[in-house]
Amino acid sequence: MKCFIRYEKYCDFPIENLPYGVFSTKDDLTHRVGVAIGDQILDLKQIAHLFTGPELKNHQDVFKEPTLNKFMSLSKPAWKEARETIQNLLSTDNPRLQNDSELRSRALVSQYDATMHLPAQIGDYTDFFSSIHHAINTGTMFRGKENALTANWKYLPVAYHGRASSVVITGTPIRRPNGQTLAVEGAPPIFGKCKLMDFELEMAFFVGGPSNELGNPIPIEKTDVHIFGFVLMNDWSARDIQKWEYIPLGPFTAKNLGTTISPWVVTTLALEPFKVDNYRQEPEPFSYLKHDDKFNFDINLQVDITPKGMNVSTTVCRSNYKNLYWTAKQQLAHHTITGCNVKAGDLVASGTISGEASDSFGSLLELSWKGTKPITMLDGSQRKFLQDGDTVTIKGMCEGDGYNIGFGECVGILLPAYDM
Amino acid sequence: MKCFIRYEKYCDFPIENLPYGVFSTKDDLTHRVGVAIGDQILDLKQIAHLFTGPELKNHQDVFKEPTLNKFMSLSKPAWKEARETIQNLLSTDNPRLQNDSELRSRALVSQYDATMHLPAQIGDYTDFFSSIHHAINTGTMFRGKENALTANWKYLPVAYHGRASSVVITGTPIRRPNGQTLAVEGAPPIFGKCKLMDFELEMAFFVGGPSNELGNPIPIEKTDVHIFGFVLMNDWSARDIQKWEYIPLGPFTAKNLGTTISPWVVTTLALEPFKVDNYRQEPEPFSYLKHDDKFNFDINLQVDITPKGMNVSTTVCRSNYKNLYWTAKQQLAHHTITGCNVKAGDLVASGTISGEASDSFGSLLELSWKGTKPITMLDGSQRKFLQDGDTVTIKGMCEGDGYNIGFGECVGILLPAYDM
Ligand SMILES: [Ca+2]
Ligand SMILES: [Ca+2]
Ligand SMILES: [Mg+2]
Ligand SMILES: [Mg+2]
Ligand code: NI
Repeated sequence: MKCFIRYEKYCDFPIENLPYGVFSTKDDLTHRVGVAIGDQILDLKQIAHLFTGPELKNHQDVFKEPTLNKFMSLSKPAWKEARETIQNLLSTDNPRLQNDSELRSRALVSQYDATMHLPAQIGDYTDFFSSIHHAINTGTMFRGKENALTANWKYLPVAYHGRASSVVITGTPIRRPNGQTLAVEGAPPIFGKCKLMDFELEMAFFVGGPSNELGNPIPIEKTDVHIFGFVLMNDWSARDIQKWEYIPLGPFTAKNLGTTISPWVVTTLALEPFKVDNYRQEPEPFSYLKHDDKFNFDINLQVDITPKGMNVSTTVCRSNYKNLYWTAKQQLAHHTITGCNVKAGDLVASGTISGEASDSFGSLLELSWKGTKPITMLDGSQRKFLQDGDTVTIKGMCEGDGYNIGFGECVGILLPAYDM
Repeated sequence: MKCFIRYEKYCDFPIENLPYGVFSTKDDLTHRVGVAIGDQILDLKQIAHLFTGPELKNHQDVFKEPTLNKFMSLSKPAWKEARETIQNLLSTDNPRLQNDSELRSRALVSQYDATMHLPAQIGDYTDFFSSIHHAINTGTMFRGKENALTANWKYLPVAYHGRASSVVITGTPIRRPNGQTLAVEGAPPIFGKCKLMDFELEMAFFVGGPSNELGNPIPIEKTDVHIFGFVLMNDWSARDIQKWEYIPLGPFTAKNLGTTISPWVVTTLALEPFKVDNYRQEPEPFSYLKHDDKFNFDINLQVDITPKGMNVSTTVCRSNYKNLYWTAKQQLAHHTITGCNVKAGDLVASGTISGEASDSFGSLLELSWKGTKPITMLDGSQRKFLQDGDTVTIKGMCEGDGYNIGFGECVGILLPAYDM
């Protein structure tokens, strides 16, 4: 496959990738749907009329929407046809777009001139807890090594409902919060600035396909037609607030202060070549959670922290999506087992993705082991938790045969708390 | 205030109430905004042009929307002007609508001919846990009397993020789910039909006003301009599933199987005469949670269960909204304290509203004390938890001086589980 648009061989967005996003430009503030190719964006609104295959010819309007929800709500064959159509239009073999300089100049926008927006209106956002290393690490810290995993953990993918409104696009600054914390065990709580701000390295998938009806679980063998594609995610977490508030109903204000996602949704179709064996599960899961086909992905992940005003960023974590114990299929089958209806545009996150090695832990809580092992940064400063002005950058990358599939970046700067 | 539309003196929807809802009719399937008056609905789309006051004359479009979100997003003065305008138009003193028989016949629809829909597109749904009696009851059952209230309970209004997609309108059948439960403590879990289906008697408010920006808490003194109005709510709960899944991140599939609300949003303005003293709070709350003005409401609540095929319903619970320890203002101030952005149309529930008396408990879990004290129904049958075919009906009512403010009904039937 050769693309008529030039890009560097190992860039994030070659013709094998073609992730979807929503963008606007200074000249045209309308939110519109595009596909990243090299350092350009192909504006699908401009080429909607070229989707003439059997699945899409009567659905060209989905490319004129301000979000991806309608496109996501189509079926997997439609997503496949869209991908093939775009690959074809970008191919050197196809003169249609390549030789139509007027259309080309309308339809191609430089990524540097674009502002990215949330790819979808997120109806609901769910956060799983599916990395066994993360679960064991945090469990060991809070309940000791013997009770690290809760009794349910290996039987079901633990999750909680998150806050959809506070999911924001890369680049959005995050404010360190004020809140209640327990400074001294057994003493009354205090109110003030969060002292233990953290990131969580996660990935999340967007739900696609038609909604299931309330009361009707999605069988595991039909889950893949509802997993549209993936983004990087930083689930910013106020650890001290979380610890005080989360019993008995789970994290609440410690998490709803902001959750950042990367702007380009890398489709499950593009990730096909990067499937690897699922994590070995013992005990064997219940049949509603059982599938034999591979649905794990080899995606290298890294987290960099850049202190305020510095050009030096330090990579504090190198992990991989394949560290997850539960697959996205299992997450979705479990999510709907009691009948929960999911809708195109819903966001379902993996939970913090920690590996086994201590430099692969996906949060500062784990990396600094509750603050007992500070991390030394390249500028000489130390981190137990995040400092004001720190920029956290998550990157993701699949290494293909002669190309990469990149996820772009998920970036946020931590602003100081307000005085309250 | 005398209304030219006739209704029974103590009906739910006198001219003092004027709750908002979204309805359609057989003749016109369009979802549209209306106000309940007696057994009629005033179709606001038909009279949008009559909102000519300073707050609304440039916002008449909000009454032509398929949901209340846009109207809710206006300011409190606009809500007030809308209420006054509608009261005025319905008054016997005002000939405008009364004497325009053509407009009147277009604008007034019988409630019997209308299908009700969700009043708003619910961006996010949150469930609090604000009744101290409910918290003590459930805490006593699961942790013993000494540890009934968790350490944080009197310092902050505990809550969790719920599932917005599964909030449904009254009348929607609810399916008993399948799921994982722990039949024998210490043994592996089993998969099968939920055995302990329950209701939770709750009320919920719809958020209104302009959104706060992410990172910017709503100060307690500004919360009331974001509390548009209230509905009844049944937070259907699968107790056995909840017990197994909820540690450590809170309820998930035990709750996202369906949450039913009543269709008519009774405005905070209409509830003004029913304000009563706030619950006495000890220890004194942090200042971000402190307010001296009354924001508690005397709303009588009751729950009826009607067994399958029976005409005999049994009132199993009589409670009151005023049993809540935390006010809606405190809930909202806490919800946003770390910067969570809330939006018009978000739904914020009270948590199960149990009183002190044993017949005022807001769930079967408490009423039957974990199944140890079965309830005898009027038809002679007994209930520890819900049975297939049971219809649960929640009603709410404020008793005014010569009139009532009713909330209508929040109804659902429990369908049998699928064989899986
Ligand atoms: Ca997380
Ligand atoms: Ca509840
Ligand atoms: Mg968040
Ligand atoms: Mg629910
Ligand atoms: Ni939502």
